[in-house]
Amino acid sequence: MSNHLKYAVFGAGSWATAIVKMLCENLDEVGWYMRSVYTKEHLLKEQHNPNYLSSVEFHLNQLKLSNDINEMAAYADVLIFVIPSAFIHSELEKLTVDISDKTIVSAVKGIMPETGLLVGEHFHEAYKIPFKNIAVIAGPCHAEEVALERLSYLTISCADDEKAQDIANALSSDYIKTKISDDIIGVEYAVMLKNIYAIAAGIAHGLGYGDNFQSVLMSNGIREMKRFIKKMHKMKRNINNSAYLGDLLVTGYSVFSRNRMFGNMIGKGYTVKSAQMEMSMIAEGYYATKSAHLLNLKNKKKTRLPIINAVYDILYEGKDPKKTFKKLTEKLD
Amino acid sequence: MSNHLKYAVFGAGSWATAIVKMLCENLDEVGWYMRSVYTKEHLLKEQHNPNYLSSVEFHLNQLKLSNDINEMAAYADVLIFVIPSAFIHSELEKLTVDISDKTIVSAVKGIMPETGLLVGEHFHEAYKIPFKNIAVIAGPCHAEEVALERLSYLTISCADDEKAQDIANALSSDYIKTKISDDIIGVEYAVMLKNIYAIAAGIAHGLGYGDNFQSVLMSNGIREMKRFIKKMHKMKRNINNSAYLGDLLVTGYSVFSRNRMFGNMIGKGYTVKSAQMEMSMIAEGYYATKSAHLLNLKNKKKTRLPIINAVYDILYEGKDPKKTFKKLTEKLD
Repeated sequence: MSNHLKYAVFGAGSWATAIVKMLCENLDEVGWYMRSVYTKEHLLKEQHNPNYLSSVEFHLNQLKLSNDINEMAAYADVLIFVIPSAFIHSELEKLTVDISDKTIVSAVKGIMPETGLLVGEHFHEAYKIPFKNIAVIAGPCHAEEVALERLSYLTISCADDEKAQDIANALSSDYIKTKISDDIIGVEYAVMLKNIYAIAAGIAHGLGYGDNFQSVLMSNGIREMKRFIKKMHKMKRNINNSAYLGDLLVTGYSVFSRNRMFGNMIGKGYTVKSAQMEMSMIAEGYYATKSAHLLNLKNKKKTRLPIINAVYDILYEGKDPKKTFKKLTEKLD
Repeated sequence: MSNHLKYAVFGAGSWATAIVKMLCENLDEVGWYMRSVYTKEHLLKEQHNPNYLSSVEFHLNQLKLSNDINEMAAYADVLIFVIPSAFIHSELEKLTVDISDKTIVSAVKGIMPETGLLVGEHFHEAYKIPFKNIAVIAGPCHAEEVALERLSYLTISCADDEKAQDIANALSSDYIKTKISDDIIGVEYAVMLKNIYAIAAGIAHGLGYGDNFQSVLMSNGIREMKRFIKKMHKMKRNINNSAYLGDLLVTGYSVFSRNRMFGNMIGKGYTVKSAQMEMSMIAEGYYATKSAHLLNLKNKKKTRLPIINAVYDILYEGKDPKKTFKKLTEKLD
């Protein structure tokens, strides 16, 4: 069992809050780092996160809260990062303690925009963490349903099976079922790519395409994802497992997904800038689109990525969504 | 081009009406057989089907309407059957003209409950139609979106590529894209099986499971469907193509699907009988569940079908939905 290890969650968004809740079902103490002094004060006073999943009540005697990333990194054996990929770099710049012997878990839904590295790869390169000490948490899992304790399934990927199982045990409960996998790279790409397809689904919806087209988009999306991941890291995997297809579906079909909402606004005629301002927060898939595009540029033989390319053209090349999607429909089947 | 061939549609439900509409985009004349004298009279007077897709207006000069199945079978070269599988047997009993040299197209979403045969197999056995003259139309396609002329994709399966392409051409238009396939057996099973998963999705929703679980159910469902079809007819196919995965998704995620609605009522505590009475029409998936179960019983080495078995236990063995799904959740991943 993992209960002798100290766990800490870094981040205070909805997914971070959900993961803290899962850990609290099993562990006597859970470390929780957040940047915001206000959030911490509010948690201490009201026992819930003021901004996300505020219906979830925590027992303060189970939480070790801190605004100091170094204090928390020093405290924990297992560091779970749940910070948007766009901010993780600047957060990590504050880190001065040595974390090379820690277990690093990424629950970040993206890629480091500065380097194009997966979060796991980044920790490996920047902090000399061996790959066997790096893990990834994947859904399909809306944080909101964790708050409601609705049955959800997680996949924990790690090259080291035992470590994966330890982390899985720390997260499992009546309403969380876990499985382990050794496809850490594939799962991390899947987690990132699904947000691009959610943007595509949103654009299609905004343009007036219906449910029939949505299902064709998802069916083409999972095939495209398979090609992409296979090119990046070839190994035996079933792309229809929950960590890949399930996660794509829960995001692509969710009307609450920020990525889908962002796409929907683009489809309805908002500019990228005004959609981002309207949402007050940038959807992960926005960065993922550029990262995926750049990664494919590096491939000698390009992978066929009609959906990602269409989203890229719209978000980064100023192409007209209606015309671009009209062309895209010719490439799907 | 197929325009020199005479097409007729048999059936007057929503999917039949949608197919007549598609054909009217391309053909000068479309035959349309329906049992109900009232529906025919109404069409002649009001130019629309009184019961289904009534917003779709037909040009009477394009339609050759008949209540006589033999007249219509004699008229057409290509016979498209769109009658619920539970009624097709009794409809076909009226047939006396020789149809052995016709092309038979099944747009029936099920299996012959009396024999467990696919509709294509039934025509082959009962009417000596060679397999090269048998085709199947698959979605993903809600009839309602065809009425709205929303972009939809169809797959036409036939052992004879040229024939498949002829039928595809007759159905294609600005809003209907088609592709052809030679996996006639696999596609026909997929069309039937998806309705069972839609019932499962409905039961889950009725029991209070959320979107996270729904995506796990669909991800397990497509893997189960792949196993089932592979056992029945092994060939190279990509189960993530639109005719399989796409069709599963459009049905499993649709709140309008009769099968999902039926399952939802079961999940909410209706008995099978009262749910059927309430819906005034029996969902195709109800029969499909029994057929799939019986087909698997015939397999020497049984295929692992946890979802189909759970639905079967609830619908036919009187098992409690809540307990049965609780057990099912342990078998999914």
